[in-house]
Amino acid sequence: MRDPYGAFCAHGPGRLAGAVDGPLMGLTFAAKDLFDIAGHITGGGNPDWLASRAPATKTAPVVQKLLDAGAALVGKTHTDELSRGIFGENAHYGTPINPKAPGRVPGGSSSGSAAAVAGELVDFALGTDTGGSVRVPASFCGIYGLRPTHGRLPFQGVLPQAPSFDTIGWLARTPELLARIANVLLGVNADQAVRARRLIVAEDAFAIAEASTRAALAPAVDHFAKLIGKCETRVLSSVPLTEWSRHQGALQGREAWTTFGEWIDNHNPRFAFEVADNFLRGMRVDDEAVKTAALFRAERRAEFARLLDPETVICLPTTPFPAPVAGQPRSRMWRLRASIITLTCIAGMTGAPQLSMPVGEVDGLPIGLSLMGEAGADQVILALALAAGNQLPHSAAAKLPPSG
Amino acid sequence: MRDPYGAFCAHGPGRLAGAVDGPLMGLTFAAKDLFDIAGHITGGGNPDWLASRAPATKTAPVVQKLLDAGAALVGKTHTDELSRGIFGENAHYGTPINPKAPGRVPGGSSSGSAAAVAGELVDFALGTDTGGSVRVPASFCGIYGLRPTHGRLPFQGVLPQAPSFDTIGWLARTPELLARIANVLLGVNADQAVRARRLIVAEDAFAIAEASTRAALAPAVDHFAKLIGKCETRVLSSVPLTEWSRHQGALQGREAWTTFGEWIDNHNPRFAFEVADNFLRGMRVDDEAVKTAALFRAERRAEFARLLDPETVICLPTTPFPAPVAGQPRSRMWRLRASIITLTCIAGMTGAPQLSMPVGEVDGLPIGLSLMGEAGADQVILALALAAGNQLPHSAAAKLPPSG
Repeated sequence: MRDPYGAFCAHGPGRLAGAVDGPLMGLTFAAKDLFDIAGHITGGGNPDWLASRAPATKTAPVVQKLLDAGAALVGKTHTDELSRGIFGENAHYGTPINPKAPGRVPGGSSSGSAAAVAGELVDFALGTDTGGSVRVPASFCGIYGLRPTHGRLPFQGVLPQAPSFDTIGWLARTPELLARIANVLLGVNADQAVRARRLIVAEDAFAIAEASTRAALAPAVDHFAKLIGKCETRVLSSVPLTEWSRHQGALQGREAWTTFGEWIDNHNPRFAFEVADNFLRGMRVDDEAVKTAALFRAERRAEFARLLDPETVICLPTTPFPAPVAGQPRSRMWRLRASIITLTCIAGMTGAPQLSMPVGEVDGLPIGLSLMGEAGADQVILALALAAGNQLPHSAAAKLPPSG
Repeated sequence: MRDPYGAFCAHGPGRLAGAVDGPLMGLTFAAKDLFDIAGHITGGGNPDWLASRAPATKTAPVVQKLLDAGAALVGKTHTDELSRGIFGENAHYGTPINPKAPGRVPGGSSSGSAAAVAGELVDFALGTDTGGSVRVPASFCGIYGLRPTHGRLPFQGVLPQAPSFDTIGWLARTPELLARIANVLLGVNADQAVRARRLIVAEDAFAIAEASTRAALAPAVDHFAKLIGKCETRVLSSVPLTEWSRHQGALQGREAWTTFGEWIDNHNPRFAFEVADNFLRGMRVDDEAVKTAALFRAERRAEFARLLDPETVICLPTTPFPAPVAGQPRSRMWRLRASIITLTCIAGMTGAPQLSMPVGEVDGLPIGLSLMGEAGADQVILALALAAGNQLPHSAAAKLPPSG
């Protein structure tokens, strides 16, 4: 298979044909190497995990649904180690090239999926999103990405990380295709969705973005404001978003340690230093911090429920800045990560659906604007993205440069 | 080169001939992969370190001295990653086989050096000892090992870890050879050393050893007591040895982070989980803990100076138990490590020389007894080991099984 962006795993299955008929007939897709494919080992981005696991006995239901709908699987794609990362830099397998911003990270952990879609190697790709792993690479690679409502799709046959956050998502180059996949996987029909009647421009989220990102996204925000008619700029929360991300860190870290701690203890696996650091932070979260974070999350969900209704949509920057230069020191990347997850934790902590759109550009680098609805309103934000459609001030970077 | 124990590095230099004449003529040796050999990269037990370094321009002075004395270098040997380990289990290159106890760890971090000597692949080998890295593998592999007085040999052309503890040491199958090497490297003559006239049996150190280890070492202790005449069983310190090792942990951890932190930050290297954990503990040591530990060390050195004189020798178990089974969970190994370093930190914190002798056996596994003198009294403990010589109740395990 042609792989100019280093997106695909060497150990994955070859091409799997889709059904001869179906709504996705003729389309190709890739799946992040967290999705089980019967007969193949799910590698999870870490060679010691790969070496210690048996081949999957069943194919993940979402993969099977896509095959049954006529799409053909082209291959499995690279991920950050055990999905613990936000930049897509994998010390074992290398970092997929960002087709829209070479020399920059692709974003992660669904790094290979995003690179394969942005590089037009497949029509769409499956990813997972625990702390931002579909939304961040969508923003950095200049493509569309959906993190549906948490729990709407069972996380079955997929390597988990932190179950109360783990969400299956997908990436594509058009909102139309995102919606077609949503139709197949979630059974929702964006054409029949209620129409958004109120837009909230999330003041606290935009405050975290760099000024150049705010400026780059302003025309698209205006477009949505006009499209909907009613627009309100306000804070999403009475509590600083940095507090949100701190508490998500405690919950996600503890859950990730619960998922992988025993395997780590038994295998003493090789991890990039930052990945080990991340797991160790999770290991050290105490019960008190978990209890406090769980209460905090319940409060935030109640606050979100008061703010939202089925006809209200929030818009916010997907990431505070475009893709950082690859290969920077970890201390620098850790600070950038802290800023990113302060935005991505909003959907994480509330379980709300979020759709990132490549509608901005900073110095030639793509940057995403997100729509977020209340939990269960996936079709509302899909319909809004579709309605904006081609009238959106698409980023020039969203077009693949001829150099590839 | 024949390597049935997996002791040697693939990337090392080939054989380097020794001078045609000299006191070590006809002998072969190996050097831990922390020693520079001109024209070759010093790999330090980590492939990302190896990949990021240039070949050494000069050969480490101790290696050159041994070559000049007529010994031939056979190859470089495996080490725990960046010498951060005590068991010799290397997740990248594998764990050298313990020739005297197959299925058990060889001990580290001078794991390959100990395996090569115990397996009779070389006559002797160079190692380094920061927190026990010569003494522990000597005990586990049933051979002799010397950690000389700290600072007596400059740590030049050797990959450092924690300079105030880093010490060049060597391993051999007889005390005679240990002494011949000491003659070449330190310029000391054990034959002319003052005779030990008082033996201290370290009560607090023996208390840490398992009962079976204490029993296995008792005949050798008796032998030394008779040889010297005057014997006293007493504690070495007014402070529990667990406090000693806690403070060494702070100092060594901080120094190791000072040595490697910038490289780690820039390269985000792959480490086994436990190695990353170890570095991160060092990274988190605060200035207050370092100050307290430095004061504690000064106090202990003063206490040691009051206890010792040139004619007094301490005996203690080298390790609290023989080599543990390889491949155990890291949480279990971490507890075993805590117990081991409570013994090895005595020489670490005081800078005293320590010589481990394979004079015991527990269930067929070798276990070492150590002699320790005051700083600078390397020749006194060498002379005592020589005097005990063949009359010592050598462990049966110290003989290589015919199965090899």
